[in-house]
Amino acid sequence: MNRALVLTGGGDCPGLNAVIRAIVKRASQEKDWEIVGSYQSFNGVLWEPSEIMILTEEMVAGIHVKGGTILGTTNVGGPFAWPVKQTDGSYTNVDRSDELIRKLQLMGIDAVINIGGDGSQRISQALYEKGLNIIGVPKTIDNDLSITDFTFGFQTAVNTATEAIDKLVTTAESHNRILILEVMGRYAGWIALHSAIAGGAEVCLIPEIPYNIDIVAERVEQRFHRGKGFAIIVVAEGVKVIQDRADEHSLDEKGEGNPKLMGSATRLKEQLIATGCKGEIRETVLGHLQRGGTPIAYDRILATQFGVKAFELMLEKKFGEMVAYQHPEIISVPIKEVIKKYNYVSTTDPLIKTAKGIGISFGD
Amino acid sequence: MNRALVLTGGGDCPGLNAVIRAIVKRASQEKDWEIVGSYQSFNGVLWEPSEIMILTEEMVAGIHVKGGTILGTTNVGGPFAWPVKQTDGSYTNVDRSDELIRKLQLMGIDAVINIGGDGSQRISQALYEKGLNIIGVPKTIDNDLSITDFTFGFQTAVNTATEAIDKLVTTAESHNRILILEVMGRYAGWIALHSAIAGGAEVCLIPEIPYNIDIVAERVEQRFHRGKGFAIIVVAEGVKVIQDRADEHSLDEKGEGNPKLMGSATRLKEQLIATGCKGEIRETVLGHLQRGGTPIAYDRILATQFGVKAFELMLEKKFGEMVAYQHPEIISVPIKEVIKKYNYVSTTDPLIKTAKGIGISFGD
Amino acid sequence: MNRALVLTGGGDCPGLNAVIRAIVKRASQEKDWEIVGSYQSFNGVLWEPSEIMILTEEMVAGIHVKGGTILGTTNVGGPFAWPVKQTDGSYTNVDRSDELIRKLQLMGIDAVINIGGDGSQRISQALYEKGLNIIGVPKTIDNDLSITDFTFGFQTAVNTATEAIDKLVTTAESHNRILILEVMGRYAGWIALHSAIAGGAEVCLIPEIPYNIDIVAERVEQRFHRGKGFAIIVVAEGVKVIQDRADEHSLDEKGEGNPKLMGSATRLKEQLIATGCKGEIRETVLGHLQRGGTPIAYDRILATQFGVKAFELMLEKKFGEMVAYQHPEIISVPIKEVIKKYNYVSTTDPLIKTAKGIGISFGD
Amino acid sequence: MNRALVLTGGGDCPGLNAVIRAIVKRASQEKDWEIVGSYQSFNGVLWEPSEIMILTEEMVAGIHVKGGTILGTTNVGGPFAWPVKQTDGSYTNVDRSDELIRKLQLMGIDAVINIGGDGSQRISQALYEKGLNIIGVPKTIDNDLSITDFTFGFQTAVNTATEAIDKLVTTAESHNRILILEVMGRYAGWIALHSAIAGGAEVCLIPEIPYNIDIVAERVEQRFHRGKGFAIIVVAEGVKVIQDRADEHSLDEKGEGNPKLMGSATRLKEQLIATGCKGEIRETVLGHLQRGGTPIAYDRILATQFGVKAFELMLEKKFGEMVAYQHPEIISVPIKEVIKKYNYVSTTDPLIKTAKGIGISFGD
Repeated sequence: MNRALVLTGGGDCPGLNAVIRAIVKRASQEKDWEIVGSYQSFNGVLWEPSEIMILTEEMVAGIHVKGGTILGTTNVGGPFAWPVKQTDGSYTNVDRSDELIRKLQLMGIDAVINIGGDGSQRISQALYEKGLNIIGVPKTIDNDLSITDFTFGFQTAVNTATEAIDKLVTTAESHNRILILEVMGRYAGWIALHSAIAGGAEVCLIPEIPYNIDIVAERVEQRFHRGKGFAIIVVAEGVKVIQDRADEHSLDEKGEGNPKLMGSATRLKEQLIATGCKGEIRETVLGHLQRGGTPIAYDRILATQFGVKAFELMLEKKFGEMVAYQHPEIISVPIKEVIKKYNYVSTTDPLIKTAKGIGISFGD
Repeated sequence: MNRALVLTGGGDCPGLNAVIRAIVKRASQEKDWEIVGSYQSFNGVLWEPSEIMILTEEMVAGIHVKGGTILGTTNVGGPFAWPVKQTDGSYTNVDRSDELIRKLQLMGIDAVINIGGDGSQRISQALYEKGLNIIGVPKTIDNDLSITDFTFGFQTAVNTATEAIDKLVTTAESHNRILILEVMGRYAGWIALHSAIAGGAEVCLIPEIPYNIDIVAERVEQRFHRGKGFAIIVVAEGVKVIQDRADEHSLDEKGEGNPKLMGSATRLKEQLIATGCKGEIRETVLGHLQRGGTPIAYDRILATQFGVKAFELMLEKKFGEMVAYQHPEIISVPIKEVIKKYNYVSTTDPLIKTAKGIGISFGD
Repeated sequence: MNRALVLTGGGDCPGLNAVIRAIVKRASQEKDWEIVGSYQSFNGVLWEPSEIMILTEEMVAGIHVKGGTILGTTNVGGPFAWPVKQTDGSYTNVDRSDELIRKLQLMGIDAVINIGGDGSQRISQALYEKGLNIIGVPKTIDNDLSITDFTFGFQTAVNTATEAIDKLVTTAESHNRILILEVMGRYAGWIALHSAIAGGAEVCLIPEIPYNIDIVAERVEQRFHRGKGFAIIVVAEGVKVIQDRADEHSLDEKGEGNPKLMGSATRLKEQLIATGCKGEIRETVLGHLQRGGTPIAYDRILATQFGVKAFELMLEKKFGEMVAYQHPEIISVPIKEVIKKYNYVSTTDPLIKTAKGIGISFGD
Repeated sequence: MNRALVLTGGGDCPGLNAVIRAIVKRASQEKDWEIVGSYQSFNGVLWEPSEIMILTEEMVAGIHVKGGTILGTTNVGGPFAWPVKQTDGSYTNVDRSDELIRKLQLMGIDAVINIGGDGSQRISQALYEKGLNIIGVPKTIDNDLSITDFTFGFQTAVNTATEAIDKLVTTAESHNRILILEVMGRYAGWIALHSAIAGGAEVCLIPEIPYNIDIVAERVEQRFHRGKGFAIIVVAEGVKVIQDRADEHSLDEKGEGNPKLMGSATRLKEQLIATGCKGEIRETVLGHLQRGGTPIAYDRILATQFGVKAFELMLEKKFGEMVAYQHPEIISVPIKEVIKKYNYVSTTDPLIKTAKGIGISFGD
């Protein structure tokens, strides 16, 4: 009997359960494979006692409909940087990777399928270089990987943001307000860009394109006439501001000096008021609502494709590889190549052209 | 030809358009009635030039599916307190109610149907006492009126909050987090109470029941075991804190001294951290997302019932009355009686009993 | 340790799981109560080997969000009419009620909470009269019980039907078609009535009001002008036809002679064509889609209230009683009184008045 | 002033309004272009009096959220086959294409953007060959065009079908039933294939893969054990049956002899019963529900990209071309090449591999 370990790491996103289910269902077609799950990424293996469980078809029945991950996930630690409490109460990170590999051998694990983002895949690569049989499945809700057309979870997040805009529009219209919606995207503005087009926003601010607040204010004011009108602004959490206004500095000190207190939506609101913008402004921060919920069909399918392919790469012993989607094929690429190439919105992206074509301003 | 004026005032809520549509469709069955809409409550009448429009069946076709109000709405001003700019730049409120009544006569308006909340109905009553033929339709997304079993918009807001909890649960579960959801409810905790039961929260904090943070922290900690578990806390925006902790004071100064900077969710998070609560905490503020969106069937039906009844009260010349729902009847009551009686959550409410029955803590 | 048995019978409806969860969570507050579930109503007890299971809080965590019932359900059999295969291959119904009561005693069951419709509650009453400690929880997706303002599942079904109308309207409008939507309602037209008002249908046909096809055709034709326009007809599955047309007879022979082959939507379509109605007609049968899905907040709350109350009635030993909702209270009534009183749509119902007020025709 | 005519033809699908809106918004950025819409494809031009209307930005505000098409659509007629009533009451098709081109000139139309399917684009090509300046935008809810990765509307239809499966699963599970869902797809099984994977069906029957009913019955029976279990079968409307059973013939005569009376779901049910399959079977036909509703974000974005690109092709005078999506680019191809190449599900498609990988049977 061969045994594969499955784990999920990093921020959760819709579709993780569909990957797990696909791996288990695919494995059930082989008579000599058993799938085991580790709780909270590698923590389930490293903890004493360990927390790993055999994943049966019964356990994964119906989970593809649910957001989150039945295996739990974590953003901290990992085998190369395990926090250990010191006698003085502080924490020091310890490398437990050799121990991890020994424990996996003792547990009879023949291969590992690691579903996770950037950070998780760096760990995958490092473990692979230490001899572990490992396959990667990419996960990034921000869609910021260049090797794959899309990652699962992204379209659900875009849809959630778009439905939020649909809801905000009716209030904005009825009250003649300016509504700012802050969406995810620390480095890549894909969720903001997609949802701004789909929802019909007037302004879309993303990390890749620094904005000038005067241009934003001007676009918003065009929408008002005799006190009537409304405007929707979608802003990614990681936006940057062009420093070309006299009064910018003080605002920025306020905003960027207290990054925990002031999100991109709140800062933008203050900046707009500072320009003399007369409209009533309200902001909404979507936050975790974008991560949760039932994955839309698109993401369930992509996640299922990734899961089946990951298992098959394992059968073919293509370790050190990661699955990816290049329409319509599901392919694989060396993990070490993937973790170096990000996918940011370029100013020449076809979608930027589309957005500008329907009058969306990027504040540039 | 008789002419009735319809207007919507105060914060928008799902179902306003269904009321307007019902009035227009009901009026189309009478051969001698015309419905006219005023933009932004009475402002459309008071402005020069005025902004009123004849509402045809064609104009209201399909609007019951949309949130917001096609007539626009406003929270400021009104005929008894119209802001007028003074020579020194300041504003003084002026009583334009006599002028309003004269203008309505000149426009050939025989009666007014005023759809709005508490503030709007006080204006209705004052105008009625001045001789205006007026009918009230209640609107409060918080469901805080005692005379009616429910008001339209409330169930849609509860459903939106509940769907938010459904989304947050998967992330809370996957990451073993404490998630705080702030919902509407400045004085009445109905939305929080309903959505906490429907979504399956562990804690529900409402304005009517002051909470003790230690009890909240204790309930949350029960849910965790060996670092695993998760908890959902629903908190109404207007909650109060019991002053029985030594360190409460400083927190409160921070929290309540800057009400604009710190919502009830953020304050609760800081309080929880101060108790030594070790779990990771994230907060989500639903805000305007609760006002918008397609009304669920329940609210469309109630709103339609209100609209038809309001028109019929007008035909029967029952002016100074407001429509209300007392299952299964749609009745009417004098406006002056309604605006005095609020509906707050009492500690003996059947729903409180239900909530406690399934283990929800109110922090008391 | 006391032990209560919970079971669900009859057609499934959204909210059943919320009732089960509420009972288990309420029981966990008593130190000496254990909840046991029987699979497929009483079948789990009567089968050899039996299929009953202890319901822990862990097992019911999160199930309130799911449609269906984790206990399974059945429409056939029961302790008073258990089908037994005869030597000639035919089946005879056998009374196993005494055996059931004996088995329950052997299993240490102190009381039973039976969640189910009309048929299930007749069994409850008969078992109660034989001395079983039993509490009833009403379940009817059709809302056809007179003792309770609403039953859980109904509002979700209405919402599903309303969303279907919302979807059909855009196609009807774009293609200038007549669209017929068949919804549930064998004897009571509540789902049809509610969804016709909420969705904005032109015609609503229900079992309680026999329709004249010529009146239906006339109402539909009013909506068309120069080949443009569209109409939505909502029809309950159990509608009746007024026999006053010469050509009715032949149609009826076709339609009613083969009730299995022809639903109310298909028959209505043929009747409309026979009147010479020129529009293009399409029909949609919602069927099981109305039973499934996530219950809306309203139904989860009502179901939770029923579950908590049922457990408390049991604690108070109020056997032979059934829970009911009379806004805002959750009350109880003797089962034997409930199963005699149905709730059909009366022509004087406030909702019929509302529906006619916005121009909906009932074909009468 | 230049003037472009926009029209929509064939069955409606979610996203049509987003294309129209994008064209109008893009045109508003050019100072000398006006967009005109023709009602019901070319009919609006050919009728006397004509029905064409100037499309302003105000008219298209917010329409991207709505299903259907504000321009109306039709499946019949067209300039090359206009039905004319003869003296004997019959209809003869007449070629009015020369007249159409003349009328367009008189109306000052410089170019036409024809949004439509296969049939519509054949008309586009024929008119282009007659000298008309025409640009095509592809529309097929079935996703059966080979030149474009996806067409708008498809993902919304898949999502609607998937949500239907989600709803059916809870009832199937609670009642231990076999549920058959009939989805769109006369020649191409893409909607069935995608929704079967996303929803988690056990069997998926598509036109491209003829099925053997015994294999279907076997797969279904595997799912049942001691009368428990459930199975979901997704079947495209256009499926074919392998003729290798003795009793097939009679069934087929019944089924295929009356194609109007018996859809693929009903026929499949009868075939399953004929195999001796003992489970309770229910069928659901989604029908028009798949065409309607709010387009998901994916389709709104793709439709917006198509609209902007179509207008730009027109500016560049690339007449006779059609827009297409080849990730991530929006490209154009000659219409005459597109209308010959269909996109059917091949047995080697990556998605077939995925589906088989998670145990979905195609009955082959």
